[in-house]
Amino acid sequence: MYIILVYDILSEGNEGSRVSRNTFKICKKYLTHIQNSVFEGELTEPLLQKLKIELKEYIRKDLDSLIVFENPQPKRLKKHFWGMEDKKTSNFF
Amino acid sequence: MYIILVYDILSEGNEGSRVSRNTFKICKKYLTHIQNSVFEGELTEPLLQKLKIELKEYIRKDLDSLIVFENPQPKRLKKHFWGMEDKKTSNFF
Repeated sequence: MYIILVYDILSEGNEGSRVSRNTFKICKKYLTHIQNSVFEGELTEPLLQKLKIELKEYIRKDLDSLIVFENPQPKRLKKHFWGMEDKKTSNFF
Repeated sequence: MYIILVYDILSEGNEGSRVSRNTFKICKKYLTHIQNSVFEGELTEPLLQKLKIELKEYIRKDLDSLIVFENPQPKRLKKHFWGMEDKKTSNFF
């Protein structure tokens, strides 16, 4: 299935930075980084569950937001870049 | 069509804040705010074009990233909240 993952980690001193860094690293293992805190890609259901388990170690239920959009159809969504082009955005980190 | 819009505005003094504020306000007129810089909703093609024209006044092609995902099918994508719940995220602004 096709996945878009967006997150917003509350930056709260060392703890926030650690959560942010780890969230980024974990997402990068499974998906393609396309904007500051936005990832996309194709994942099987077992891999999606693995990603969830890994992220649950860090994401703080009361502070951080993480939303996964799931398209059950194999087709990707159309993407429009109204600001920077595709290639530039991959240099964020 | 169903739209997910994500943006990342480079915070660069007054100019960055102004772009960020205006981008947020414009998106809010057309779509539902679901995370810090993430919006979603149903838009017709003419409305999508109107949104694009309004945003182009502010988005800096060399500094800011704005990606629109478009699902031509009327169906919304499944949404999973792995951090904060839906209601809390709407209080960001």
